[in-house]
Amino acid sequence: MAKEKKKPRPKAETPKGFRDYFGAEVAQRKEMLDKIAAVYHLYGFEALESSAVETVEALGKFLPDVDRPNEGVFAWQEDDAKQGQDWLALRYDLTAPLARVYAQNRNDLPTPYRRYAMGPVWRNEKPGPGRFRQFYQCDADTVGAGSVAADAEICAMLADTLEAVGIERGDYVVRVNNRKVLNGVMEVAGILDPSDPSKFEAERGIVLRAIDKLDRLGVEGVRALLGEGREDESGDFAKGAGLPEDQAEIVMVFLSARDNIRSKWERDGNISLRPGFAKSDFLGGTHFLDSKFATRLKEIRDSGTFEEREKLLNFGTISTLASLVESSEVGMAGLGELTEIADLLAAQGYEADRIVIDPSVVRGLGYYTGPVYEAELTFEIKDEKGRVRQFGSVAGGGRYDDLVKRFTGQEVPATGVSIGVDRLLAALHAKGRLSKDAVGPVIVTVMDRDRMAEYQTMVAELRTAGIRAEVYLGNPKNFGNQLKYADKRNAPVAIIEGSDEAERGVVQIKDLILGAKIAQTATLEEWKGQPAQREVARGDLVAEIRKMLDA
Amino acid sequence: MAKEKKKPRPKAETPKGFRDYFGAEVAQRKEMLDKIAAVYHLYGFEALESSAVETVEALGKFLPDVDRPNEGVFAWQEDDAKQGQDWLALRYDLTAPLARVYAQNRNDLPTPYRRYAMGPVWRNEKPGPGRFRQFYQCDADTVGAGSVAADAEICAMLADTLEAVGIERGDYVVRVNNRKVLNGVMEVAGILDPSDPSKFEAERGIVLRAIDKLDRLGVEGVRALLGEGREDESGDFAKGAGLPEDQAEIVMVFLSARDNIRSKWERDGNISLRPGFAKSDFLGGTHFLDSKFATRLKEIRDSGTFEEREKLLNFGTISTLASLVESSEVGMAGLGELTEIADLLAAQGYEADRIVIDPSVVRGLGYYTGPVYEAELTFEIKDEKGRVRQFGSVAGGGRYDDLVKRFTGQEVPATGVSIGVDRLLAALHAKGRLSKDAVGPVIVTVMDRDRMAEYQTMVAELRTAGIRAEVYLGNPKNFGNQLKYADKRNAPVAIIEGSDEAERGVVQIKDLILGAKIAQTATLEEWKGQPAQREVARGDLVAEIRKMLDA
Repeated sequence: MAKEKKKPRPKAETPKGFRDYFGAEVAQRKEMLDKIAAVYHLYGFEALESSAVETVEALGKFLPDVDRPNEGVFAWQEDDAKQGQDWLALRYDLTAPLARVYAQNRNDLPTPYRRYAMGPVWRNEKPGPGRFRQFYQCDADTVGAGSVAADAEICAMLADTLEAVGIERGDYVVRVNNRKVLNGVMEVAGILDPSDPSKFEAERGIVLRAIDKLDRLGVEGVRALLGEGREDESGDFAKGAGLPEDQAEIVMVFLSARDNIRSKWERDGNISLRPGFAKSDFLGGTHFLDSKFATRLKEIRDSGTFEEREKLLNFGTISTLASLVESSEVGMAGLGELTEIADLLAAQGYEADRIVIDPSVVRGLGYYTGPVYEAELTFEIKDEKGRVRQFGSVAGGGRYDDLVKRFTGQEVPATGVSIGVDRLLAALHAKGRLSKDAVGPVIVTVMDRDRMAEYQTMVAELRTAGIRAEVYLGNPKNFGNQLKYADKRNAPVAIIEGSDEAERGVVQIKDLILGAKIAQTATLEEWKGQPAQREVARGDLVAEIRKMLDA
Repeated sequence: MAKEKKKPRPKAETPKGFRDYFGAEVAQRKEMLDKIAAVYHLYGFEALESSAVETVEALGKFLPDVDRPNEGVFAWQEDDAKQGQDWLALRYDLTAPLARVYAQNRNDLPTPYRRYAMGPVWRNEKPGPGRFRQFYQCDADTVGAGSVAADAEICAMLADTLEAVGIERGDYVVRVNNRKVLNGVMEVAGILDPSDPSKFEAERGIVLRAIDKLDRLGVEGVRALLGEGREDESGDFAKGAGLPEDQAEIVMVFLSARDNIRSKWERDGNISLRPGFAKSDFLGGTHFLDSKFATRLKEIRDSGTFEEREKLLNFGTISTLASLVESSEVGMAGLGELTEIADLLAAQGYEADRIVIDPSVVRGLGYYTGPVYEAELTFEIKDEKGRVRQFGSVAGGGRYDDLVKRFTGQEVPATGVSIGVDRLLAALHAKGRLSKDAVGPVIVTVMDRDRMAEYQTMVAELRTAGIRAEVYLGNPKNFGNQLKYADKRNAPVAIIEGSDEAERGVVQIKDLILGAKIAQTATLEEWKGQPAQREVARGDLVAEIRKMLDA
């Protein structure tokens, strides 16, 4: 310590963008993570905890924040570095480390490898209100399963998980899309050259990130980012993808497909289907007539259930996407996967009220190759400016068939989801689903410093009986401070034993919950005969406290 | 991905000194940490989870590894740094962050503040076999309690914790010492100038670290480090504290006090007590005679219980320490605290069989100011070279009254313990106390890709009944691979339904546990009538599986 003497005192501050979690916050998160892990486990997933530190080369560069230092990660150089492996970094997600772990242990791990993981990840982002640079994720992934049944399963598990932690059915939807459909759209629009997809890689990233901001920036903001770029409120200019207007328009038609169908239908009672699109699929019969379909559309609009409405919109969206990408092989393949996922899920009871096909879901991360999905909470909250809005996304994921290949050279299909733990906790908080502040410990006060061993014996007896208890260990001089401490700890009971009590073989028990109630009540009548403090025999201490806590 | 194309493939490796934890390892650690947290909670401690990243100035420089880059921490410079706060680092323990958190929130937190914390910490150490640069700690600390009752409580809790996770009484001791006694010894030896303790700060650190290595280097190794220095097996030379021989000798007498007393007593049946030292304290009577004491010493040596032996050694050790430091005020104060802690603990039933006074315990960290303690497991294991040795230390801690003061300028007393989670897990492993590998999921095999929705429905039914289950999601072509997978996952049951079974409304259930037993048994007689595979009605699937798993 002496070395520090001449220096100014260090500041007691969490670094900017970091925060600490206290007591109930930690317990609530743990409770939620335990519930999530139980669902993941039930689905056959195994725990993995990889190291927080990875080599920069193993992490790769997939973060949206390309303009940040080290492209968004916290990195440093190894001092004893050998050539080629000299930069280390904190993981920015749990997916890139999984790819590394699987590639490293592929001969020992089962295939498919189903793993779940939970823990902090770090992003070197610009700190801002509510934006933290360390946060928890809770992921489940299946590596080595190429079938979209694996994607469908993750979507089903995501729905089950949300319900397990306390989000009720009707308060969430899982939105599904497919990157291949987007690639098909870009191919059709002439943006992407199917013979050399790598040519457009950087621009494709800008397009993805632009679409991913639809929530925040709205249609016009995204359109600007697809074109020349956009000035934000602070005056900063974000360079756009530089698409000509006609190309940008095709992308906009794609990502707004569901919204456009909904608006038109709600206005006109009509949905434009691709010519020849099997209306029978929707009507569920083999005989179909345009007029019957048209009637049904209006019926559902005017008196359909939520599920019927969403099912119709799924149907219409797929029809529109099919019109858009029919000339693109990859686009139609993506559309096929999308419908297969929805069909598999519907067969298991995850219908359109929970599984929604939504082209505006693309996910910002660069590594997705097929299905992408997002869990959105649909109930309303007030934002920081008091405006009512939907709660929004709490989880997302997708298929990333090339991530393991980076290491091994061999294609290994993989898909998985990441739950934004803090967002989901905030949602549970908004819904009043979190366990309340736990009751504090029983406090044994210190009337007489020399009797410390006896006070310690009392708490030992209480703890042996499973009752949370402690001796007051601050300066005991001021008895009022001891009671203030008990109050701050939310203690249910304080125990008092001075030399007088000790001689008589008794202790005083102070019911702090009752005491607080009495203090709040104007008339004391009802509390008569229920004194907040009473004397019991020392030998009855544990039994009496047990009785009070059970009451 | 395209950007990466021209580069060589990244290596799939954990960075040197880091590792990953799989399945059962994660579950076992979680189970142990949950048990520890339950004890901490019972003692009135509250959870805290601080950020993994701290400013370098907030962390301070207290690690033993002064010769390592950044003095043992992983640190990097903030790119958007303002002046004076530009270096961030990963926490190297949970104590320095606690001091920062308490200083930052002292007006809102109760005092005393009892908190527990668990999580990874990082050390920029030279990686080596079994030495990791990321490891778990699990701490409990009381901030704002100056009384040694707080230290005694932590020692009691440490003993309870070890027993709660499965270390039996008799397999551990908590060794206690006091830095003030060591300071007293150094004062007496003329090493430390009591009027200006800061003068010796650097050398004191070398002395501390030298003593802390007694376990590993033995008496001669420590003596060398107190003097000129020492060459290790690899030929590296570690510079010593440079003490003259007579000063080093006094330190050696101090730290070997308990061992020397034990050897002499076991050899001669005698213990040299400081003149006038109250033998009555030990004999428990008011009348005492040298001859009676001498007889008792031999009796205990020849037929005393473990507790009686250790109690005598505690007594003798205190006497020797009193002789050593009687001329030092700080030394005698430390000795007073040491005996007070032992007395408080004995009064609560934590006797000398569990609480041992041991001057060789000093702890390597620079911030301790008073009592220091360590939990040692006393059972024997074989080390990597096959030699039998005691398991050794699994937890340690002490009082650090100046750590919060660094931030606030005001003295805030504090004490706490840190459990080395991986060491304790290794101990439980050695004792066979860890839960076995959990049984894997029920595997529904895929005979017919088109029936995927039906297979998913089966697992959904099983999961709803709380049975862990999954559909095989790898390539289903080779049925043998599906069974190999089930085997690798330690699956208890495989379910088979082809189109034939589907038509007949049945499924095949394959009992993999029974199958494995049959495969191992030479005579098949006893398994007759218990076929490992049988057919059940589809509607009875869940009930049948439930029955098999319960059996």
